[in-house]
Amino acid sequence: MTEPLDLARLQRRLAEFAAARNWQPYHIPKNLAAALSVEASELVEIFQWLTPEESARVMADPGTAHRVTDEVADVLAYLLQFCDVLGIDPLAALAAKIDRNEQRFPAPGAQGGPEERQRPED
Amino acid sequence: MTEPLDLARLQRRLAEFAAARNWQPYHIPKNLAAALSVEASELVEIFQWLTPEESARVMADPGTAHRVTDEVADVLAYLLQFCDVLGIDPLAALAAKIDRNEQRFPAPGAQGGPEERQRPED
Amino acid sequence: MTEPLDLARLQRRLAEFAAARNWQPYHIPKNLAAALSVEASELVEIFQWLTPEESARVMADPGTAHRVTDEVADVLAYLLQFCDVLGIDPLAALAAKIDRNEQRFPAPGAQGGPEERQRPED
Amino acid sequence: MTEPLDLARLQRRLAEFAAARNWQPYHIPKNLAAALSVEASELVEIFQWLTPEESARVMADPGTAHRVTDEVADVLAYLLQFCDVLGIDPLAALAAKIDRNEQRFPAPGAQGGPEERQRPED
Repeated sequence: MTEPLDLARLQRRLAEFAAARNWQPYHIPKNLAAALSVEASELVEIFQWLTPEESARVMADPGTAHRVTDEVADVLAYLLQFCDVLGIDPLAALAAKIDRNEQRFPAPGAQGGPEERQRPED
Repeated sequence: MTEPLDLARLQRRLAEFAAARNWQPYHIPKNLAAALSVEASELVEIFQWLTPEESARVMADPGTAHRVTDEVADVLAYLLQFCDVLGIDPLAALAAKIDRNEQRFPAPGAQGGPEERQRPED
Repeated sequence: MTEPLDLARLQRRLAEFAAARNWQPYHIPKNLAAALSVEASELVEIFQWLTPEESARVMADPGTAHRVTDEVADVLAYLLQFCDVLGIDPLAALAAKIDRNEQRFPAPGAQGGPEERQRPED
Repeated sequence: MTEPLDLARLQRRLAEFAAARNWQPYHIPKNLAAALSVEASELVEIFQWLTPEESARVMADPGTAHRVTDEVADVLAYLLQFCDVLGIDPLAALAAKIDRNEQRFPAPGAQGGPEERQRPED
């Protein structure tokens, strides 16, 4: 493949793939959101009984590494298809969200305050 | 912002954001997978009582459109952070998966067979 | 089995089952909550591409009926085990919640108002 | 309340609650499965950044204990409503599943074999 990998190109391949199989009637936003959450849960399943330490080493086992990578692909595929049918630009959405979060959760160092460790936002 | 929006740049901003807040100890793969699935479920929640037709029109209401876009950003943010801590390239993972799926699910037209409508793969 | 089926007895069988296999170290609340959500997603997976009408008929097909029933069992199993390790009484929790919801969401008829159809609470 | 707490009675209260609010059109199996998974994820959310040790102590904080108990109630409520609309007996489903699992996963001690610690089934 000579074209560089980019989201827009992958999104187009996914749309063509679904169209060639006449899957568009199934690919309504409600169903794609459900499918996305199902794939995210399949990723959770890989980790559910692991200790934190074991979870950090999943890529050391080739079989598990393949399974994890495959679920990442499935999550991204449904996220891109969801965005495609609703006309959402996922990169712009994320950039805007990071901007907002930088306002909402100022970095401790930026304020000169003590370096306290807060929990991530929920 | 003059740099183009791309995944790698957003991934770097997310990593810097987490590092500035000392969130890395929380950002282990097991926790990030859980957070990803929680955000995907928040997307499902928006759609859970909608009919298929209503679900196709969610972007028509500005408040709902903002909520949907925000959840998309959250899902993508945790997916990128998950990939970052495990060294997974999400675009390469998806490209490889599409290649495999083109083998597994040949398009009906490509085989000259009847145009039957199959369900998407599970 | 001559004893009647009840939650407490099933909860005891599940605890004995896990103990006999030395699974208690895995059965910490965080892991059981993740497992519960994974099983709930496996239930969603059965329905993800179905129309509302098809979803109402899933029990008509014996294979699908078995799959649905099996996932219900898995969800209930992890819910009971989660409650067991944390000392939560699920029936009392639900009774208290229904009491609270009857206050929060008064039935339209109970107020003599028009019978409007509201969406379920989120 | 003088009647004992039992699942059937809670299931009846939930059905009456939904009927009084005209929520039955929303309570189709596909939507109830989605709602169940959303509530299960809200339970996961409470635990997502906790260490295993912290997760075992969630009931020590009254606010967190209330939140956990409330999510348990929500999960059970949607599970019972899902079973109600599809005519599934959740206790019979679980009893049958435990029976099957006792065949599939024989306890190590029952076979005289070495006491190895296996992971829970996926």
